[in-house]
Amino acid sequence: MKGLHIFADLYNCPDSVLLTSADELRTLCMAACRRAGLTVLGEHFFQFDGFDSLQAGGATGAVVLAESHLAIHTWPERSGATLDVYVCNVTADNSGKAEKLYEAMITALRPADVLVDRVWRGRDLPVVQAKAA
Amino acid sequence: MKGLHIFADLYNCPDSVLLTSADELRTLCMAACRRAGLTVLGEHFFQFDGFDSLQAGGATGAVVLAESHLAIHTWPERSGATLDVYVCNVTADNSGKAEKLYEAMITALRPADVLVDRVWRGRDLPVVQAKAA
Repeated sequence: MKGLHIFADLYNCPDSVLLTSADELRTLCMAACRRAGLTVLGEHFFQFDGFDSLQAGGATGAVVLAESHLAIHTWPERSGATLDVYVCNVTADNSGKAEKLYEAMITALRPADVLVDRVWRGRDLPVVQAKAA
Repeated sequence: MKGLHIFADLYNCPDSVLLTSADELRTLCMAACRRAGLTVLGEHFFQFDGFDSLQAGGATGAVVLAESHLAIHTWPERSGATLDVYVCNVTADNSGKAEKLYEAMITALRPADVLVDRVWRGRDLPVVQAKAA
């Protein structure tokens, strides 16, 4: 159950379809996960309407990974997004893949300002051995 | 972009189909989100195979909410799960809904031991006003 969870609040991103198009955001996320060497199991993304006729709506979604998940919610009216990259060490230390995915997302969204924290989740507990019937 | 993110590592859960069935876990998560007053936009859950013929596989998934997301990954071979409940304050303080959802998940999964942290995400930034064309 051990793994690295990177959670980041992104501010002052330049105008981009990545903030306003669920389809574009999905494409970015799926490609970034795969390029980082992670295993995509599925995803769900949703397109919000704008608050008014002048403002594009945001996008939100999650990619379910064999190694845990990526989640992102955009706020174009605030030029921002919140991002979660959580990658467990299933059979090896996957923290490098988590960092690679995080960097790909930052490179694409180009926030001028980021609040980011890294949490190591899980602790060592003995595996409960399955018993033969 | 402000909101409460509760992230928890659940240990020593009793044997339960909630740890081994993606369908059962999905049903729980969807119902718990709705009972907490949150707006489900979609979900994706996945069923893992067991490590061997004696051990049931885990389940993993995410529920995409209008208010952000719930994500959960189970580890039946460790009698555990990792849980994220992240609920933004879209138009009102939704932290009570986040706590209600978290409590529902804990009540269902019944961990004997939990590592939980609460993070308030986002900070006050002025809204970027849309300009008329």
